[in-house]
Amino acid sequence: MVYKIIENFEGKILNLTHLDEKNRPKMVDVSEKNNTTRVAIASGKITMSQDAFDAIVSNNTKKGPVIQTAVIAAIMGVKKTSEMIPMCHPLLLTGINCDVEELPELPGFKLIVTAKLKGQTGVEMEALTGTSIGLLTIYDMVKAIDKGMIISDVQLESKAGGKSGDFERQSIKDTKK
Amino acid sequence: MVYKIIENFEGKILNLTHLDEKNRPKMVDVSEKNNTTRVAIASGKITMSQDAFDAIVSNNTKKGPVIQTAVIAAIMGVKKTSEMIPMCHPLLLTGINCDVEELPELPGFKLIVTAKLKGQTGVEMEALTGTSIGLLTIYDMVKAIDKGMIISDVQLESKAGGKSGDFERQSIKDTKK
Amino acid sequence: MVYKIIENFEGKILNLTHLDEKNRPKMVDVSEKNNTTRVAIASGKITMSQDAFDAIVSNNTKKGPVIQTAVIAAIMGVKKTSEMIPMCHPLLLTGINCDVEELPELPGFKLIVTAKLKGQTGVEMEALTGTSIGLLTIYDMVKAIDKGMIISDVQLESKAGGKSGDFERQSIKDTKK
Amino acid sequence: MVYKIIENFEGKILNLTHLDEKNRPKMVDVSEKNNTTRVAIASGKITMSQDAFDAIVSNNTKKGPVIQTAVIAAIMGVKKTSEMIPMCHPLLLTGINCDVEELPELPGFKLIVTAKLKGQTGVEMEALTGTSIGLLTIYDMVKAIDKGMIISDVQLESKAGGKSGDFERQSIKDTKK
Amino acid sequence: MVYKIIENFEGKILNLTHLDEKNRPKMVDVSEKNNTTRVAIASGKITMSQDAFDAIVSNNTKKGPVIQTAVIAAIMGVKKTSEMIPMCHPLLLTGINCDVEELPELPGFKLIVTAKLKGQTGVEMEALTGTSIGLLTIYDMVKAIDKGMIISDVQLESKAGGKSGDFERQSIKDTKK
Amino acid sequence: MVYKIIENFEGKILNLTHLDEKNRPKMVDVSEKNNTTRVAIASGKITMSQDAFDAIVSNNTKKGPVIQTAVIAAIMGVKKTSEMIPMCHPLLLTGINCDVEELPELPGFKLIVTAKLKGQTGVEMEALTGTSIGLLTIYDMVKAIDKGMIISDVQLESKAGGKSGDFERQSIKDTKK
Repeated sequence: MVYKIIENFEGKILNLTHLDEKNRPKMVDVSEKNNTTRVAIASGKITMSQDAFDAIVSNNTKKGPVIQTAVIAAIMGVKKTSEMIPMCHPLLLTGINCDVEELPELPGFKLIVTAKLKGQTGVEMEALTGTSIGLLTIYDMVKAIDKGMIISDVQLESKAGGKSGDFERQSIKDTKK
Repeated sequence: MVYKIIENFEGKILNLTHLDEKNRPKMVDVSEKNNTTRVAIASGKITMSQDAFDAIVSNNTKKGPVIQTAVIAAIMGVKKTSEMIPMCHPLLLTGINCDVEELPELPGFKLIVTAKLKGQTGVEMEALTGTSIGLLTIYDMVKAIDKGMIISDVQLESKAGGKSGDFERQSIKDTKK
Repeated sequence: MVYKIIENFEGKILNLTHLDEKNRPKMVDVSEKNNTTRVAIASGKITMSQDAFDAIVSNNTKKGPVIQTAVIAAIMGVKKTSEMIPMCHPLLLTGINCDVEELPELPGFKLIVTAKLKGQTGVEMEALTGTSIGLLTIYDMVKAIDKGMIISDVQLESKAGGKSGDFERQSIKDTKK
Repeated sequence: MVYKIIENFEGKILNLTHLDEKNRPKMVDVSEKNNTTRVAIASGKITMSQDAFDAIVSNNTKKGPVIQTAVIAAIMGVKKTSEMIPMCHPLLLTGINCDVEELPELPGFKLIVTAKLKGQTGVEMEALTGTSIGLLTIYDMVKAIDKGMIISDVQLESKAGGKSGDFERQSIKDTKK
Repeated sequence: MVYKIIENFEGKILNLTHLDEKNRPKMVDVSEKNNTTRVAIASGKITMSQDAFDAIVSNNTKKGPVIQTAVIAAIMGVKKTSEMIPMCHPLLLTGINCDVEELPELPGFKLIVTAKLKGQTGVEMEALTGTSIGLLTIYDMVKAIDKGMIISDVQLESKAGGKSGDFERQSIKDTKK
Repeated sequence: MVYKIIENFEGKILNLTHLDEKNRPKMVDVSEKNNTTRVAIASGKITMSQDAFDAIVSNNTKKGPVIQTAVIAAIMGVKKTSEMIPMCHPLLLTGINCDVEELPELPGFKLIVTAKLKGQTGVEMEALTGTSIGLLTIYDMVKAIDKGMIISDVQLESKAGGKSGDFERQSIKDTKK
């Protein structure tokens, strides 16, 4: 897989916007930004042993509590973002959902979180944080079977709304991903 | 890189310990476990564009606020684990630290979190959660320059203490890592 | 007492709005809802032994710290709702208050919480959660005297504002309850 | 239903232990209490319309996300108790689980939460708080169908461990309950 | 130093707005207030021994982690205000920053926090809470050297926006303070 | 007022214990420290206009909700310390109380918080944080009358237990204090 950043976001301003002129972290002032609808989608994967995968999936055919717990943790994690990530703005999220795909070829799972907001700043961090918390929850639920699981490819898939323009991750090949 | 699980942990009990007999999630009862000293080390990476990397590193030579903020977020994230991961026990962590390595060959950074406890249950989830939060914080601080950054290889490096024995991740080749 | 639902709310759509098409929980998208003023009032009761009641009331004539603590806990509980109830939206509550009535005939207390918001979604859950936390606080403060106390009749009293219309609980007889 | 308090708890000391000599709330000093294993079980009910009940139950036969979400919320709520109830001690809970019973005769559900600790103070409040949060979560998930649902009978079922002795709620008749 | 309140705020209404007619605390209703841009600046100081000061400052010339940690804690503390201060409204802060001045004449430090909001109520409490948390963090980081440090002069410097008018603290002499 | 540090605490080791060898903040490892009973007492003051003082005190003779709210906020704030102060250990506090003294000569109030623990690390930060939160709560409750109030003299009064020895603040003159 390769990715290419689709144009149009804030550009090559090599400024770290979260630092002030004395190099101190700050929460960026967005008071004058518009209240627009913003959506961000993030995803990530967890790779595990066949045993661990089978344990979740066989269970999944019945009630799916591992995946359900991960989904709920992801959604609650989205809401906690501004508490966890120091320079994130508190946000009035208007919608969150989380989907999970089985990836038997890894074996493992892919978790996709969508965060939506009508507000003054983007929700990328929210989608990414929810994704991470959801994947960590899967790890927690099956770690008695496999402690070697690896979380990877936690990344922004797309972003819409806001001044900095849209972002769409482009994959040449989607097979391995 | 390949990894091999070094023996000795809870083994092939294909039970999801976090589910009860009705397949409902539960927080596992550890009341009878011993109070032993437990240490877990986790790590993870963030890959970014050269521009983003340079912005952090050039800044780093002065005051390093991006990395400092990530370190602090990681440590605070460790303490938040039982709030974020639904079936995690609240724990009296006795020590936390976080190290960051520059990986100019990615380019990107590796974050390593150590969590320590004298208690009845392990601290793997704490180390892993802190690692994720620290990496997400780096993403947040430089996302104005690069939204395509990818968090990967979030994994347990080692674990010591407790009935289930020690865990040590083994790498054959360390080049790609 | 009997209650009757006063017309006009979302109706007999036997959909669980908090589930997606795969039956996964989600936080419902309210981005397109209007920003209207919304008020919800909830109430609940705690029944206790005469001893416990007397201890609070005699104390009440002086400084009332049990009831005061319950009121403060209820208000702070309202603000915590979206952290506690997984699919609740974070909300910018604009007003909260809490009233407490002595019910010597139980004996016990009735707690009434009003939550107010200018926003895109209702505040029923906030009023109900605050009520529960307030009642649990009364339990906590007097449990050394009576562990058999019962919390009951935690219910929405009324709701105004929003597309789904108003709700008013109707009581035929209000005397005993 | 009637209940009778089974002997042996702290007795008729009509002191509100959570108040100091100036009638100010305090968090009681338990430094000299023993570290013993303590268990508390609490339960509560939610009564709803037939429509609401059917929506959950028909859904339940598939994946049960309403009940699963309530179980997870209850467990996470237990862990939040000392943050919500002002005079509660922070505790190192060693085990939590939550069960749910269908009560078609109400119609509604009964939620039972067990909290376990090896520590210096009881876990009644934790079990009761988890029960309340779990029931509120059911309310939240089906409130689009029925806003008139009532939470009731939130009560301590039993308590074991600690100086104040055991508590067991006694029911003469279980029919109405 | 003397201070004088610059006119124009809510005036001599000797009402405690946070109490209802029964003298119960409430979160004031601001539903009808306008959404205006509001800024508040607060400051505070910490006085310490020469040894403690030197340890921070000598360190500061390198990487400044004590001051950086305080800045981050202050910003995160601002976001936590409505959780800590019982009658504070949850707010959508749009900007936060924190500056620190060395005061070798104390010796000690002055911390200045600015909070910004486009909303219905002021951000004085946010600026003051962030200041306190930042100063407490400095205390924490150097308390192994000096436990006698004193936090003082935590005060509102200015406030703009909102119906109650602006506030500007006036200092005649600023030397010793 | 002058203060003198009573001997015997960690001494002139000009190390910032909260930094590692790379000058990165860490949460100090206390795994090998003893579980001893530790008590810390902190205090602080708020100075206000006569009008503000009278409003609280006249109200105080009835029910005292301002002071009660401050006491509860202080106790809850103590429990939040490790969430607010980045390098603080999570602690199992065993007792907290808060006292308030009227200081008509300021005019204003003095708040005194005692935190108690049987654990591996001290509770100075907890007592100091609770004091700050309590004082900020008083500010919040009366800020409609006086925005010029000043919080000062937030300081450790005494500390007992633990390897670093006891600390007792000594005052020559107590008049101005």
